[in-house]
Amino acid sequence: MEILIKDCLIGGAEKSILVSDGKISEVGKPKTTDYVINAKGMAALPGLVNTHTHLAMTMFRGMADDLPLSDWLNKHIWPAEGKYLGGEFCRTGSLLGCLEMIKSGTTCFADQYFFMDSTAEAVRESGLRAYLAQAVLDFKTPQYEAGDALKVAGRFLRNNPPDEMIKPMVGPHAPYTCCEETLIASKELAQKHAAMLHIHISETKSEAEQIKKEKGKRPVEYLDSIGFLGGNVLAAHCVYLNEHEIQLMKKNNTTISHNPTSNMKLASGVAPVAQMLAAGIPVTLGTDGCASNNNLDMFGEMRQAALLHKVAALDPTAVSARQALQMATTNAYKSLGLNLGLEVGRDADIILVDLKKPHLRPVHNIESHLVYSASGADVDTVIVAGKILMERRQVKTLNEEEILEKAEEIKP
Amino acid sequence: MEILIKDCLIGGAEKSILVSDGKISEVGKPKTTDYVINAKGMAALPGLVNTHTHLAMTMFRGMADDLPLSDWLNKHIWPAEGKYLGGEFCRTGSLLGCLEMIKSGTTCFADQYFFMDSTAEAVRESGLRAYLAQAVLDFKTPQYEAGDALKVAGRFLRNNPPDEMIKPMVGPHAPYTCCEETLIASKELAQKHAAMLHIHISETKSEAEQIKKEKGKRPVEYLDSIGFLGGNVLAAHCVYLNEHEIQLMKKNNTTISHNPTSNMKLASGVAPVAQMLAAGIPVTLGTDGCASNNNLDMFGEMRQAALLHKVAALDPTAVSARQALQMATTNAYKSLGLNLGLEVGRDADIILVDLKKPHLRPVHNIESHLVYSASGADVDTVIVAGKILMERRQVKTLNEEEILEKAEEIKP
Repeated sequence: MEILIKDCLIGGAEKSILVSDGKISEVGKPKTTDYVINAKGMAALPGLVNTHTHLAMTMFRGMADDLPLSDWLNKHIWPAEGKYLGGEFCRTGSLLGCLEMIKSGTTCFADQYFFMDSTAEAVRESGLRAYLAQAVLDFKTPQYEAGDALKVAGRFLRNNPPDEMIKPMVGPHAPYTCCEETLIASKELAQKHAAMLHIHISETKSEAEQIKKEKGKRPVEYLDSIGFLGGNVLAAHCVYLNEHEIQLMKKNNTTISHNPTSNMKLASGVAPVAQMLAAGIPVTLGTDGCASNNNLDMFGEMRQAALLHKVAALDPTAVSARQALQMATTNAYKSLGLNLGLEVGRDADIILVDLKKPHLRPVHNIESHLVYSASGADVDTVIVAGKILMERRQVKTLNEEEILEKAEEIKP
Repeated sequence: MEILIKDCLIGGAEKSILVSDGKISEVGKPKTTDYVINAKGMAALPGLVNTHTHLAMTMFRGMADDLPLSDWLNKHIWPAEGKYLGGEFCRTGSLLGCLEMIKSGTTCFADQYFFMDSTAEAVRESGLRAYLAQAVLDFKTPQYEAGDALKVAGRFLRNNPPDEMIKPMVGPHAPYTCCEETLIASKELAQKHAAMLHIHISETKSEAEQIKKEKGKRPVEYLDSIGFLGGNVLAAHCVYLNEHEIQLMKKNNTTISHNPTSNMKLASGVAPVAQMLAAGIPVTLGTDGCASNNNLDMFGEMRQAALLHKVAALDPTAVSARQALQMATTNAYKSLGLNLGLEVGRDADIILVDLKKPHLRPVHNIESHLVYSASGADVDTVIVAGKILMERRQVKTLNEEEILEKAEEIKP
């Protein structure tokens, strides 16, 4: 199928984009084709990438806020997971999350959670791209008994060989929930399947202190010392990294997912993002799950990344709008190996942002508007791999009403 | 005119609201009337109040970001103001701002800027409520010569006697831009007209240090010592207040407008909001102007207030969703003397938030969704003083297309 995106704004200039067979085949003034999207007054962007989610946790959105971390986990999230988690629940939560991502301009995401086969089903239905990690923990979870995690993860990898839309990952939860043996076995499993790993590192100060106490090394030093780190590792949070750990991340070419809203809401702390960027790490951006954010809007996350580091460093030049946009786009493409961008030959993951809104006028600087003024609700059209997932805010792949009703019906 | 808002959610329960002659006349199950708004699945809230804006600065939105404060002001904002400010420019910028506020659920705001007669015209046209302060500075501005500020402010007060919709204020800009004589004369002018004062206090550390050096007192101590503070003062920012100054604000019953996004973007610092709330001050919330935010979305501002203080204090219980919502509603009503709330006899300023959206499902807790998940784009309907300003996102009082075009046409 060919689609002509007519008269959109690319870097401030009005151009048209021709999409043929899932790829961008022309940018400039291509001749017309059967299916034309009039994008006058809209900014075209390659899709936004959310590098850290727990998608099915949309079902727990707003269930427990403003609580100390231990109460939040022990009294609310873990009991709710224990009671409700299962294939059908996670499939519905994942469909709801996919719907939300399409409606806010995210075209690809990296997940780590339970019942990942169900999330994969939802992703296929939605038409999004995803990197999906079955969560691996040493103790009993709602999905498996203690010690069975790697078997479940291995089965997920075998059942979901990587293709154009879904890349399975291995998801060792964190260095404090997985022993050294589990971490190394996860790494080996990933290597066997040429998959990436998705892990939480140094989300809280107490976690960093615990590892230091147990292993005699800080978390990143410990993971480096056992040969865990590398270019196939995606590390979420990384709030408590010192300069040596930042250098280790850089040396290992490890991907970092910064999650500012979640780190603020759970009062975890402020990740050293300006230092990471200065070290040459292409930091990426993630929302984390909806129990700690509480939405999946990457526009809000870009804005938060730009704002948080300014006030934390008392430096208004820290993390510019351009850097925030790069985190959600080019940095993620580079880190995850995505062939995206508004250029001929790239995969056609394209979003159109409608600038004809009071809060996006006048237009002085589109990058500034995208980061500081816009929200996901300004996304008009979403195309992934050349397929239209949403046009004029109507989602085409999923039945919105049905998913909202189902989520309400089976909520905890 | 009578309006029946049918089957909206109030505090989680489905009720209907009858609006008669600008007031709420029934809440519960009123009989039907001529004009019915079907609000099934929508949360009803009394209007949000933005207590600190520079409305016409919408025209400078996104013109200069990610810059040191001195470059931002000296090289961009002040030169642009000098070149462009005038009645027509400020009227257009104010219309754009009113449009944006209606579309994001703000029904009342407190402004301080230049050419305030033009902003008053725009507000009348929009149907919003406003507290409008002509800015008073000791030096030459785009509107007046040095020394003429109080004459201009006096004329604004005389030309705009307070009525139901607009309350004029006096706007001495800040203790570092107004000498003691100007501050006292402003106070007297306000008292003569039974008006409030709108001032910036301690936005930056350098400002606090400068006043301390010049006056031997910290800013709030200085303002208290000259008899400036009081219940008719609205003070924006208040980032650098120590415990003694917080107590002085409380003693004087002075209204504080907290502006978290602007304080983050300009890297001013983190206001001691948790301490202010603990001292019993009903802190209110403002966006500041669009050159330093860059939008007027009070949903984003509530979210930011709840998030920023959690990470600043490393305490996830600091500033709850409920407290953030109170800042934008009841605290502002109390501070500004507004007769709002979803109760019989109150003025009918009501907004409807559509919860039938992927990012607002499932519904566990409406307050949480409003603060942590929603954006202004989720506002479906806005009623002010019993008049429908927007229904199903169609603005009825202003011509949206015309305003967007005009703003683009005359932008700097």
